Amino acid sequence: MAPHNTTNAAFVQDLGAALAPEQLSVDAGVRAAYAVDQGPVTDYAEPLAVVWAGSVADVQAVVRIAAAHGVPVIARGAGTGVSGGAHATTGSIILSLERMDRILEINAEDEIARVEPGVVNADLNDAVAEHGLMYAPDPASYKTSTIGGNVATNAGGLRCAKYGVTRDAVLALDVVLADGQLIHTGHRTFKGVAGYDLTSLFVGSEGTLGIVVGITVRLKYLPMDIRTLAVFFPTVQAAARGVLALGKARVQPCILELMDGPSLQELDFRNGSDLASRGTALLLAQFDGLAAAQEVEIATAELTALGGSVNQEHSDEAARLVDLRRHSRGMDVDSEITVGEDVAVPRSQLVHYVSALEEMAARHGVGVRVIAHAGDGNLHPTFYVESQDARSVAALNRALDESIEKALELGGTITGEHGVGQYKLRWLPLEQREEVLELQRRLKDLFDPAHVLNPGKAISAPA
Amino acid sequence: MAPHNTTNAAFVQDLGAALAPEQLSVDAGVRAAYAVDQGPVTDYAEPLAVVWAGSVADVQAVVRIAAAHGVPVIARGAGTGVSGGAHATTGSIILSLERMDRILEINAEDEIARVEPGVVNADLNDAVAEHGLMYAPDPASYKTSTIGGNVATNAGGLRCAKYGVTRDAVLALDVVLADGQLIHTGHRTFKGVAGYDLTSLFVGSEGTLGIVVGITVRLKYLPMDIRTLAVFFPTVQAAARGVLALGKARVQPCILELMDGPSLQELDFRNGSDLASRGTALLLAQFDGLAAAQEVEIATAELTALGGSVNQEHSDEAARLVDLRRHSRGMDVDSEITVGEDVAVPRSQLVHYVSALEEMAARHGVGVRVIAHAGDGNLHPTFYVESQDARSVAALNRALDESIEKALELGGTITGEHGVGQYKLRWLPLEQREEVLELQRRLKDLFDPAHVLNPGKAISAPA
Repeated sequence: MAPHNTTNAAFVQDLGAALAPEQLSVDAGVRAAYAVDQGPVTDYAEPLAVVWAGSVADVQAVVRIAAAHGVPVIARGAGTGVSGGAHATTGSIILSLERMDRILEINAEDEIARVEPGVVNADLNDAVAEHGLMYAPDPASYKTSTIGGNVATNAGGLRCAKYGVTRDAVLALDVVLADGQLIHTGHRTFKGVAGYDLTSLFVGSEGTLGIVVGITVRLKYLPMDIRTLAVFFPTVQAAARGVLALGKARVQPCILELMDGPSLQELDFRNGSDLASRGTALLLAQFDGLAAAQEVEIATAELTALGGSVNQEHSDEAARLVDLRRHSRGMDVDSEITVGEDVAVPRSQLVHYVSALEEMAARHGVGVRVIAHAGDGNLHPTFYVESQDARSVAALNRALDESIEKALELGGTITGEHGVGQYKLRWLPLEQREEVLELQRRLKDLFDPAHVLNPGKAISAPA
Repeated sequence: MAPHNTTNAAFVQDLGAALAPEQLSVDAGVRAAYAVDQGPVTDYAEPLAVVWAGSVADVQAVVRIAAAHGVPVIARGAGTGVSGGAHATTGSIILSLERMDRILEINAEDEIARVEPGVVNADLNDAVAEHGLMYAPDPASYKTSTIGGNVATNAGGLRCAKYGVTRDAVLALDVVLADGQLIHTGHRTFKGVAGYDLTSLFVGSEGTLGIVVGITVRLKYLPMDIRTLAVFFPTVQAAARGVLALGKARVQPCILELMDGPSLQELDFRNGSDLASRGTALLLAQFDGLAAAQEVEIATAELTALGGSVNQEHSDEAARLVDLRRHSRGMDVDSEITVGEDVAVPRSQLVHYVSALEEMAARHGVGVRVIAHAGDGNLHPTFYVESQDARSVAALNRALDESIEKALELGGTITGEHGVGQYKLRWLPLEQREEVLELQRRLKDLFDPAHVLNPGKAISAPA
């Protein structure tokens, strides 16, 4: 699939005519580097070329040229996605937006910012912090992932139980459609109900309906006080019950993360920490805002009553713990023998689901570690086997499938925040009925009749 | 347009065969009562019939029969909309969902509820309050309007600056499509990114893409403390500056309402209150949650520094004030000579916009009163003239048009929370470009190719 046949050569030549030399590469190493994101790879392919847009006009030109040649365009931010949404497919090109990285506007009075898609999440947060504001959605990858990529996957993060996900933060979008046309959706105001909500439709659509080239986001207040509790429990089930107890006490943590024993051991092994010696499961709860101290008091009482050993962390240690948690998934680069999941279940089912995961892992003879954004029932269990032999991989996949089925049985979803991408397509028909899948195919056909934009991702092909 | 010709008689006969006698009326008085919602009427028409669905199956049957006869179906909740979204059109039927009023499930641990569309907003709030929860979106009509109607218009309310609008509260929907098929969208979990966001697309689509027959909503914690400040200012501009000062101080009122002098006088006249004697403009600020007392302290200092006269209200008086404000729009039943608007502007533009409204009203020789959900920049100016003569009505319409243009010029929207319905169609092309309008027409054609569902509402017809 290297660009050697005549058709591909003509295509690359057209790209070259539209872009500056440093915006286009057909180098084998570059194509390999941009072939995959951080999701599991089941069907490896390298792109014909990698192009870097520097402007909206570049994106329009690339989409038009690709459409003319029938070449699929896969938009890519930092490539930190974990569902293969930015994996290259056979005969495609990768359109990197990482160089469109300007913060176009920060309006502190309106509490909004307008950015290009390649702006890194952490950079936006740094820039608005001096105005006492924050961009709330904080995927674990926030130090490297882009706002455009966050929009493509409707990224979640640690703070979303309190502050919402990416879609809740996006007010307006500039989008290049499959025919190269640029449209603007949404509004600068917090509220607006003129017409259909095209903005929400593009958010989370993984570059399959249009390519997002500009984003207007609503900012939130940077909290004036932050308090963190590390609460160790004798069992992961007890920790999960703690989540429900906090809900019942009507306190709202900004971060509420659950880690089971194997996760603590893995963290200790990788980071030299001593978490596992402090308890079997950890509930890491952070409260922010003017009521943080009061919420900590209430939470301490509730969690102590459940058998938790509550430690209020000093800010350095708290930051270290949150940082460890944020990057705990990073320690699991997905592979054929290690797959991290992203199911979500209604919060009342957390306790049952965690027990079910342990039981099914044991039954299939595979390992499992569980971390969870417990505040919103979003779990990232990681299943793993020690060997790549067919029998082990098959057992791993059976456990994965069963964990998905169980989450759905409990009223959950196959993906809380990572997106379907390419890897989770096999499970989508378990969650959504054929008529809903078909409606999405028809939407895809409406926006992108020639299937130029990231085809074969996000939604199910007909059976 | 009464159901007297043969075609209409056959249609009504088919409806009668599918429904119980008490579910169908062609009575002239009934048809007149259901002909309009509370929006301005520019093109009065009565429906052929009114039907009341008692079940999802009823809705499916009605939609199928209407589709077979080519009769438009206008879904209606309580008819409290103010943009004419539920106005009958020539040859249409009204499908009332008010009898589908069961709360199907309240799950306090999961913090969700599942309701039929006819459940009244206040009834849901009463039911979940005993679990320490609330359904946050609170349009002024919350005592009578239905959740289904709130979903159709993506209703806002007083609390949305802090708690979000209807779309933010809706997790999943059951929807009857134009061909009578029932689909389920969304998820019971707080987070979920499987497939395109069909749920958000249906919310706010005013019954033009499908008929919502079931709604799963996320609930919020009922605050443990509520404090209310009534702050009187010497000018409405000073009050608007107070809104920005609170933003800059990073306190988050749950309610932040602005009323100008003429609005206070009107409230006094109708309710026997003495608000106008206490100041020229009122900022009504309510804080809730564990930090309410601290926020009140900060707000008091900020608003006093701006020349505000700050009164902390006791709970009875506070409730009365909020109630007065909630129903202040109710005092203006829209008519040919009194029209309430619903623009929103970026918050930084509030001061300028309020001044511009006063100036343009004076120039056109019409009256204006301004109330605003100031926390999110959503204003409800009411323009009025004293006489129905053509010259007065023309002046009123010029002022209305100019107020819309000015809001757009300041980066605003024609409708913050009421919806486009029928009445605001004339302004939609001022806000959205033709390619965006066309995309919406194509979405409408995809969901409802025969234009059975509330045609001629919400989106612009081709020029």
